[in-house]
Amino acid sequence: MNNPSLNDYTIHNLIEQRWSPRAFDNKLVAAEKIGSILEAARWAPSAFNEQPWRFIVGQKGDATYDNILNTLIEWNQLWAGKAPVLILNIAKKTFTHNNKPNVTFKYDLGQAVGLMIMEIVNQGLVSHQMSGFDPKKASELLNIPNDYQAVSVTAIGYMGNIENLSEDMAKIETKPRERKNLTDLVYSGKFGNPIEL
Amino acid sequence: MNNPSLNDYTIHNLIEQRWSPRAFDNKLVAAEKIGSILEAARWAPSAFNEQPWRFIVGQKGDATYDNILNTLIEWNQLWAGKAPVLILNIAKKTFTHNNKPNVTFKYDLGQAVGLMIMEIVNQGLVSHQMSGFDPKKASELLNIPNDYQAVSVTAIGYMGNIENLSEDMAKIETKPRERKNLTDLVYSGKFGNPIEL
Repeated sequence: MNNPSLNDYTIHNLIEQRWSPRAFDNKLVAAEKIGSILEAARWAPSAFNEQPWRFIVGQKGDATYDNILNTLIEWNQLWAGKAPVLILNIAKKTFTHNNKPNVTFKYDLGQAVGLMIMEIVNQGLVSHQMSGFDPKKASELLNIPNDYQAVSVTAIGYMGNIENLSEDMAKIETKPRERKNLTDLVYSGKFGNPIEL
Repeated sequence: MNNPSLNDYTIHNLIEQRWSPRAFDNKLVAAEKIGSILEAARWAPSAFNEQPWRFIVGQKGDATYDNILNTLIEWNQLWAGKAPVLILNIAKKTFTHNNKPNVTFKYDLGQAVGLMIMEIVNQGLVSHQMSGFDPKKASELLNIPNDYQAVSVTAIGYMGNIENLSEDMAKIETKPRERKNLTDLVYSGKFGNPIEL
């Protein structure tokens, strides 16, 4: 199943085809593909090239996977537990060069994951990120130092069969994707004043 | 000039070719391309599909551009003032559905900009983001409401001639791009324990 964006302007296929399904196949992801996905994040830009992102990778069958899965809220566990890969996305809160707070640590992590989800599409895979997890539990289970913050979890794998989802999840899955209009998001002059392109 | 990533695993060309130059050509960017760039950000994923991102777009010659340029620290003004497009990246701090704080507002914005910089490469353009600007000044000059936070500025345009940069900037521009090793960023088991792929 595809669920491409309904865009007003042409965009690259990787961006157009990306979406966040809940139906995952149980086929495993080859190590080489996992390497490429992480490599994409590695080359993201960041303030002072701090590269605040860290990733803990769980693969189905290992203890890391079970620990990450256990941090998810129940609703997310229901579907994400079918995905062969779960990645915990973490960022360092301070700059290494001066120990001062890094105000863009989450922004920079988000950008790295943004590049990662592009490579995921490139590898023929799908992903679905969650903020519905317990960061405190994650810190305890995975020994995350105080200076680092777990921000999200990404489920990664091959697109599965929607018929294997519960009825309510299947209903969400097949809805067309919705976004605000560009005129609600993009301004010129002052905040709130729609740009005319 | 190109400055591709020196990657260990293959990654998509869009990711490999993206970098953050300071040499911009003064050629303007067509409105259609600006539309595609913003469209890419529009289709990013976000927590509860909040889409917290907002963008104020300045094009060389308009007052918006001058206002955004004026918020930059002096070093950034020196080179970013040559770029034909400056975008102020803003995010909403609370969820619209319940008015509660959105802990991933910067993360979601970062991800939208991550998709945007991929489309920028796809359009044959280059970008360079800056956190070196005055968000308070930006809020004043551009009427940004209290519930929104200006997080970064992106300079966008065509790659320029490095010979037009100052000597110190040209030196930075021609350095190979550096990143931490994947083994420093990607863990399995516990935080800090390098994954073996």
